[in-house]
Amino acid sequence: MLESAKLPEIQIFSTADVDKAKASGSDFEIIFGEPRLMHDLLASLPRLRWVQSMSAGVEQLLDPALPRDYVLTNARGVFGGLMSEYVFGYLLYHERRIFERYQAQQDHRWDRSTTGMIRGKTIGLLGVGSIGAHLARTAKHFGMTVRGYTRSSESCPEVDRYFHGQALLDFAKGLDYLVSVLPNTAETRHIVEASLLNALPLHALFINVGRGSALDESALIEALTTKKIAGAVLDVLEHEPLPQEHPFWNTPNLLITFHTSAPSLPADIAQLFIENYRRFLRGEELMYRVDFERGY
Amino acid sequence: MLESAKLPEIQIFSTADVDKAKASGSDFEIIFGEPRLMHDLLASLPRLRWVQSMSAGVEQLLDPALPRDYVLTNARGVFGGLMSEYVFGYLLYHERRIFERYQAQQDHRWDRSTTGMIRGKTIGLLGVGSIGAHLARTAKHFGMTVRGYTRSSESCPEVDRYFHGQALLDFAKGLDYLVSVLPNTAETRHIVEASLLNALPLHALFINVGRGSALDESALIEALTTKKIAGAVLDVLEHEPLPQEHPFWNTPNLLITFHTSAPSLPADIAQLFIENYRRFLRGEELMYRVDFERGY
Repeated sequence: MLESAKLPEIQIFSTADVDKAKASGSDFEIIFGEPRLMHDLLASLPRLRWVQSMSAGVEQLLDPALPRDYVLTNARGVFGGLMSEYVFGYLLYHERRIFERYQAQQDHRWDRSTTGMIRGKTIGLLGVGSIGAHLARTAKHFGMTVRGYTRSSESCPEVDRYFHGQALLDFAKGLDYLVSVLPNTAETRHIVEASLLNALPLHALFINVGRGSALDESALIEALTTKKIAGAVLDVLEHEPLPQEHPFWNTPNLLITFHTSAPSLPADIAQLFIENYRRFLRGEELMYRVDFERGY
Repeated sequence: MLESAKLPEIQIFSTADVDKAKASGSDFEIIFGEPRLMHDLLASLPRLRWVQSMSAGVEQLLDPALPRDYVLTNARGVFGGLMSEYVFGYLLYHERRIFERYQAQQDHRWDRSTTGMIRGKTIGLLGVGSIGAHLARTAKHFGMTVRGYTRSSESCPEVDRYFHGQALLDFAKGLDYLVSVLPNTAETRHIVEASLLNALPLHALFINVGRGSALDESALIEALTTKKIAGAVLDVLEHEPLPQEHPFWNTPNLLITFHTSAPSLPADIAQLFIENYRRFLRGEELMYRVDFERGY
């Protein structure tokens, strides 16, 4: 796709060719790739001007030992739709009792028990960037009330009420669903802990599609085993893959989905790179620049 | 709710009071209720002017032996949201491999296999009334292509392409999902049969949220056991509850949900009655009038 876009003034090397290219005197001004593969490369590229990450998370590039004298842009705006599919897929799975209906069928039991619904429910979004805004639009489509907890921004019109700073427990009170879309930063670490989980109603569901570091995992195990909340769905974890001895494998009412919620689709990400490269050539500001201090 | 609406010029009797009311000389001009409970009552109400059904389906009132000299209105416009929750809940359950992820977790297996998605897929709606139109809007929200098969109407702007009459197999070709929202009429009986199912791609999913009579059940069993399509989700069946000896209990890749997709919620239906009653008093045309000949 990148080749077929016929981008001007660019020579493209794959990671397999990096050593060869450097040996022949080439040096790189631009990297387009996955942050976990770039860490070791970064310090040896004096002419580096721009890195386009294929993912939203860029933790590996925020290491203070690494250079920061280049423009880092991450992938945003492309995951919202897939994240909505994931989050609303699980909300509907939960409310519409899809697993219980399946079990009734296995038992040859005509189960006309009432179904739940997401219409009229209240969802709380921890973080309202481009993914959170997409989740808010989907929630509105289904007739839900939306609360947003952010550092300061209030830019998404589909959020009915914003909360900031110390108002985290007020934000949590009465939520039917709590969804974290937070990145991994010093400020978001373990923001979902015992007091927040205890502030939720007993029937609440917690979903984490941001980063595993936002959750105090012991507090969630405690909340689920003592039925302080009804369930949780975790796509991201502090340690991935989840160690075999981790209690999450057997925690009641917990579903784990192995960091599959929103794969980086090559076509989406390449499109983003192409658009940003055109801006780069024209000397314009790039889309989705990461603030190294803020961490996103 | 009906009492609290303080409707003028109306006396409300519950079914329990019908005999008493008739004995005291009252006669009924309006019935608001479930069609299956009205069948025996209808012939004995000479002053009957209007029946508001609590459901969308009114088969029981279309019996040619029953009087038709009254206005019959059914419940429409209130089920679309719930039907969208059901249909998209199952589409996402299927594509996002929710059951397989659950099984991987049971096996303590970190399963990073690729997830599917509904974005970019094509959904075909058999019937585009108020429920079909709602499904079309939800499909568009998720970035899908929408085809509609109708008798003649083309009134929903979210349908990308309409098909009618003999074009049923053209409609089916290449669909990722086929969803029937059709009512029970002579024309819709067994419209989903072998040739239609065979026209679908192997990976297609069929969902029936209309009436069970639209499906030739033997043809679906054949299509599923020979893997002509990938799966089916049936909320409605020809005979409900499903007889214990019916092969559907054990048909592979078939989910049954016991006619629970869109319960008639008292608040929704009462609101509809109240609005129609206001029109009735003013002598205006009622909303959602049923054509006895057409059957919906």
